[in-house]
Formats: sequence, structure tokens, C-alpha cells
Amino acid sequence: MNKNNIEVCISPALFDLHKNEEAVAVVVDILRATSSICNAFANGVDKIMPVETRNIALDMKNKGYTVAAERNGHKLDFADFGNSPFHFSRENVEGKTIVYSTTNGTRTIHLASECFEVIIAAFLNNKAVADYLVKANRDVVIVCAGWKNKNNIEDTVYAGCLVESLLETGQFTTNCDSALMALDLWSNWKNNLRTLIDKSAQRYRLQEKGLDDCIDFCLQLDQTDIVPLFKDDVIVSNLNQ
Amino acid sequence: MNKNNIEVCISPALFDLHKNEEAVAVVVDILRATSSICNAFANGVDKIMPVETRNIALDMKNKGYTVAAERNGHKLDFADFGNSPFHFSRENVEGKTIVYSTTNGTRTIHLASECFEVIIAAFLNNKAVADYLVKANRDVVIVCAGWKNKNNIEDTVYAGCLVESLLETGQFTTNCDSALMALDLWSNWKNNLRTLIDKSAQRYRLQEKGLDDCIDFCLQLDQTDIVPLFKDDVIVSNLNQ
Repeated sequence: MNKNNIEVCISPALFDLHKNEEAVAVVVDILRATSSICNAFANGVDKIMPVETRNIALDMKNKGYTVAAERNGHKLDFADFGNSPFHFSRENVEGKTIVYSTTNGTRTIHLASECFEVIIAAFLNNKAVADYLVKANRDVVIVCAGWKNKNNIEDTVYAGCLVESLLETGQFTTNCDSALMALDLWSNWKNNLRTLIDKSAQRYRLQEKGLDDCIDFCLQLDQTDIVPLFKDDVIVSNLNQ
Repeated sequence: MNKNNIEVCISPALFDLHKNEEAVAVVVDILRATSSICNAFANGVDKIMPVETRNIALDMKNKGYTVAAERNGHKLDFADFGNSPFHFSRENVEGKTIVYSTTNGTRTIHLASECFEVIIAAFLNNKAVADYLVKANRDVVIVCAGWKNKNNIEDTVYAGCLVESLLETGQFTTNCDSALMALDLWSNWKNNLRTLIDKSAQRYRLQEKGLDDCIDFCLQLDQTDIVPLFKDDVIVSNLNQ
């Protein structure tokens, strides 16, 4: 049996080197966009519309949508809430369509749509994502959102976590150096993940703004069975398909 | 005292995010360009002229220069020799000016020249490079040549080696996630480096072409005290300045 290949793209700026029209793209932005999206679906959101620019988000707000939007960690003034997973509470999101715009995550979701399919991953839904990819039976490109095109620790270590889950099935293989380095990082730190994340630049960025209260939440494995899918410009739950 | 900052740029495609006109750029292409350049200076080369295109290399050959040139591991037909450090023997290079063109390394050297100064590093001259950077007393950008803009294991683990050497002096600091991940990779594998390199894509590329005989050579620490400098379009020894 030919195994499915795994590639890890550690920065959106390198996506053209990894893109593969036949592969499933897995978008990762652990602190905080993809963790927040997973939590929104765990709390019953109906749909999320990722939009790239502030102006589109504002336009959607004026049309009556609930808008979650931030730039550089700060909630945009017109938005209903920002980018903390705690904002995506059942009270705020259940049954709703949420318009969502963030510094790195939403842009990466749109970029990844050159692949066959785009799914959203975080520690919070890792097992569900791995199971989904086994059933999809395609090559996988894990796309780290990073920070303004720089590679970051938290997305890379999660990429390693997913690489491990996929290799353990025996259905996948990789010859991608970035995947092997991500796996090594995860193997070394998986029992001590918070210590690793505490070294990351993003932890300092969040801490300076008093937004680091969500880090432990975002590092929890397997809190939801939902795999958010980006289809026809909106993110929906795989369980509703 | 303000410490000097270290950044690690893990792909030439990300260089614009890290470039700093006041910093020393350290170009790394362990398998094989920067290891070969270090060995050439250890063997008494006078100058190395890195040229980007096959056509310029051919033109220089026709002007009577000794030319070392490869693409994708293979020596170009008109070249005197290819890119193995073993080709840069005392017999082949002593006292000469060598024109040099490789798949990734020479392009990265030219790119890095937007920084204050460009130096060439490999395991072979690591201590000399660290000592040079301490004296330079500037910020440092370590630029990994990678493979066709993809990040690779061998350049990243060497970047971690140099980050460790610099942090140990107490004169440097870093808040760059790529630097921290490179340091982690080096810390885990420094006593077992060949096992790590044997996983890398470049090892397989070299092995397929029968060119992997130089790997152990390239992983040796501190075989020369020379720091090659890229100045006025040629590479010269720091000891001749």
C-alpha cells in the first residue's frame, strides 16, 4: 500500500513550496485562532465566516452579524468580542453565524484553500483531526499560521503532535525535514508543554496585554470530537455534513 | 549592558522578516556549500567568488578561472570540480581564486549581503565564528540556506549549535522562536548528530548520487580558525584583513 505523505509548512510564506491540490490542508494557529474556532464548535456555533480585512469585518457588523475580530491581540473597536477562546462561549455563539478576523489565522485559512480541502486543528481536537485524516486517505499538508510569516513554537509543536498521531496509524509517512523537526520538538516537550510554550514569543505578546489566561486551555488535548471544515467560504462542523 | 540579539532565519524565503542592516549575517549551508568554503580556506585558497548563475560560472571558466559548480548535487559539465568539501583540497585550491556556484548556498550569500556584514559558518569553524561575533559586538542573523527555500535539518541544527555558543558568552540574547527551536534540536542531538542527519532529506539526496561520503567530515567541530568573510563580491579569510 502506498502511504499518504505528510508535509509541515512552518510559515504561510512557504506555502507555495508545500501546496498540493490533492492534499488535505490542516490549518494550525494554536494561540489563538484555531483553538478558538474549535471551542466555538464545541459550544454549538452554527457557522464561522473567516474574513481577512478589518473593513470586511466592519461591513458584516453593519449588516447585523456577530463579529469576533482582533489585530495584534487587541479586539477591534467595533467587534462584539476578540480572539480569546473564552469569548467563544455557549452564551456568545450557540446557534449563531460568527464573522471572524484575526492577525494570522484567517489569512492562512484562505491561503490553504488551494488544497483539496481545508480543516481546522488544535490540541483541542487532535484525535478527531487524526481520525478524519485517516478516513480522508489523502496526503496532508499541515500549515502553521505562525506570526506575521515567522515560524513559531506553539504551532510547530502542535504540528509535531499531529505528525505523531498520523505516523502511529501506519497509514502515513513523511520525508519532510520540517515534519521531522516538529515531531522531535513534540516528543521532547509533550510531557512538559507549558514550559516550552512559556519560552515562546507569543506568550510574551499575550502576557503584555493580559491575554495569556487562555494558554493552559489551548494546550488541552481532545476536548471536542468536531473537525471544523472550511467549505464555500465558511467554516462548518464535519458532524453537520 | 544591552545584549546583542540573535535571530535565526530558517529559509532564504523568510529573509526579509529578519534582515537587519546593523547585524552580522551568518550564512549556513552545512551539506555542503559552507562546509566546502571553510575547508577551502583551511587548505589555503586565496579567494572564492560566489556566482549565482550557470552562465556567469561558464563565462568565468572561459576567462581562465578555476570553477567549482553544481546544481542539485551534480557537477556542471564545464566545471573543474563540484561541491564536495573533498574537492577543495590543498592541491586544488591553495593560493588560487575559485569561482563557486551551488544550488542554494551562493544565492543565500548574496541575499544576506543586505546586512552589515556577511560571514560563512559551518561546524568546521564554529568556535572561530562565535569568537568573531563576540568581537563584532553586533546583532546576529543566522541565515540557513535550506533546500530550494524549504527549511532543513542540517542547517537548523547547526544554527542551534551557534546559538548555544553565543548564549554561553553572556553577551547575546534571543526572543526568536526559530532560534529557540534550533537550540532545542541541537541540545537533543549534539551527542548523536549523525543519527539526526541520517533522517534528513539532504542525506537521501546525496546518498542517491553517491555523494554522502562527506557527511561525517562536515559534522566535525572546529577544524579551522578561519572565518570566511563576503566582502566586495568575493569571499576572503578574516586572517588576511
